[in-house]
Amino acid sequence: MPSVLVSEVGPRDGLQSIAAVMPTHAKRRWIAALARAGLREIEVASFVPPRLMPQMADAAEVVQDALALPDLHVAVLAPNLQGARAALQAGAHKITLPVSVSEAHSLANVRKSHAQMIETVREVVALRDEDWPEARIEAGLSTAFGCTLAGAISDAQTLALAQTMADCGVDEVGLSDTTGYANPAQVRRLFSALQRELGERAGGAHFHNTRGQGLANVVAALEAGVRTFDASQGGLGGCPHAPGATGNIVTEDLVFLLEAMGLDTGIDVAALLEARAILRAALPDEPLYGHLPDAGLPKDFVYAREAA
Amino acid sequence: MPSVLVSEVGPRDGLQSIAAVMPTHAKRRWIAALARAGLREIEVASFVPPRLMPQMADAAEVVQDALALPDLHVAVLAPNLQGARAALQAGAHKITLPVSVSEAHSLANVRKSHAQMIETVREVVALRDEDWPEARIEAGLSTAFGCTLAGAISDAQTLALAQTMADCGVDEVGLSDTTGYANPAQVRRLFSALQRELGERAGGAHFHNTRGQGLANVVAALEAGVRTFDASQGGLGGCPHAPGATGNIVTEDLVFLLEAMGLDTGIDVAALLEARAILRAALPDEPLYGHLPDAGLPKDFVYAREAA
Repeated sequence: MPSVLVSEVGPRDGLQSIAAVMPTHAKRRWIAALARAGLREIEVASFVPPRLMPQMADAAEVVQDALALPDLHVAVLAPNLQGARAALQAGAHKITLPVSVSEAHSLANVRKSHAQMIETVREVVALRDEDWPEARIEAGLSTAFGCTLAGAISDAQTLALAQTMADCGVDEVGLSDTTGYANPAQVRRLFSALQRELGERAGGAHFHNTRGQGLANVVAALEAGVRTFDASQGGLGGCPHAPGATGNIVTEDLVFLLEAMGLDTGIDVAALLEARAILRAALPDEPLYGHLPDAGLPKDFVYAREAA
Repeated sequence: MPSVLVSEVGPRDGLQSIAAVMPTHAKRRWIAALARAGLREIEVASFVPPRLMPQMADAAEVVQDALALPDLHVAVLAPNLQGARAALQAGAHKITLPVSVSEAHSLANVRKSHAQMIETVREVVALRDEDWPEARIEAGLSTAFGCTLAGAISDAQTLALAQTMADCGVDEVGLSDTTGYANPAQVRRLFSALQRELGERAGGAHFHNTRGQGLANVVAALEAGVRTFDASQGGLGGCPHAPGATGNIVTEDLVFLLEAMGLDTGIDVAALLEARAILRAALPDEPLYGHLPDAGLPKDFVYAREAA
């Protein structure tokens, strides 16, 4: 059993942040290739109005396709009750609700105050409890480490909102460095506190590589005990409402980091690069990031699962 | 007093790894700008035969220029006794001798077996002791974490050579991830052992970002107590004898990492970006790396020296 979960968010966070719209058939091929590479959880879509985000107009179809893949945990993002209902109806296993610690970012991103967003979370949890008790709900705390609009965010702000989310009944609370502000000292401190205060409801880390600190923050999060990391193939991604916030950490480089450290991800790098080739072909004009795809695995490289 | 030393190696490791030859007057301006930004140690040149490395033909002149800058520790690389003598004559404060843990890399890089290179180190130390007792000598252990030619390198190999170097009388022994093979678990383990075994002679970390792991490895090295880090502005650099080994970790991103973690570097980011503009103008066709230069400092960013 792999010891770390790499949760691929490229099909959601990546694709929603670029202008191009990937055709449904290309999404299907890419997601299937990612699953073949050993990714056990993929955030495949965002349930938002198509007029706001045409890249995600096929969300329900993409979820249904993904559900046909063996042993895949199908995750989605939904910013509101309507989106969450549609996601649950489509059969998503997990819904992440984006809850901004910065109220300015919340207003820009989901057009809701803190009070309104907390109410939304309560409604989504109630809906889940009523009709889809198997589905998991995560509150993903955006701007948990700082905000391009509001500036510094204190640990106390983030931890208070995390507790509120737990009180609302979500299954897990993850912390997102939406804006690339996080540093390893802060990451270690904040995730340690999150685990102390929320126990099993403490969720994973969602880092962006805006200032090149993404994998450095992963090292700190690992030390704090985090075992779930969002990443995006080729570093696709960002946030349209957080200026300068470029892509997620790169799945390829993250997998190498973890495996080299002896942490089993269950992922095969060669198959991951085949998925990257599909992404490359589907979006020929989009910049893709990452160092491992150019450099390759080291000579004599041993996967954690082989070393164990 | 800054708590971490960022040792800029771009004028040596960077410039020696690219085809273009930077004119002496441009080196002078760039190095002066780096010093103005607060870099207290700069590796300004490599003392190698100009026919092998025309980029470094002006090494003595560059050292003399750098010696005129206030409070700058002027470091150089020298692969052999002749180079070390020329560097000492020029007035360098510190000489790094590249000593490969992989004998295959040693033969490729300096055309010497281990036994021959150890003899060279002894001769350089004797020369220093005799005529330039103030100069510092570092053995920089190349391929300390793995080698593109020899594959895996064991901790025992690296630590044995480190001890040999200390026995030869060098002042410090640094570890270099020449090939971008290092991972944070290995870095933490190896630097901890180095400090245990060598005490005050344990030197700094020289990481390349070949597989995107550079700053992740810095976090691990910091935990092991390392307080000196080589980096190259814009990530210029590499090793012509280690295929696929691209540039050093990026000074700009490293400084942000350290300062954000509360570790004073003494460096000013705005001035560092002015130095980058000089580098950019001098080498208009060379790729420069780094995320911070694009993203800028976060809103409300506070330097460690201001927070303290």
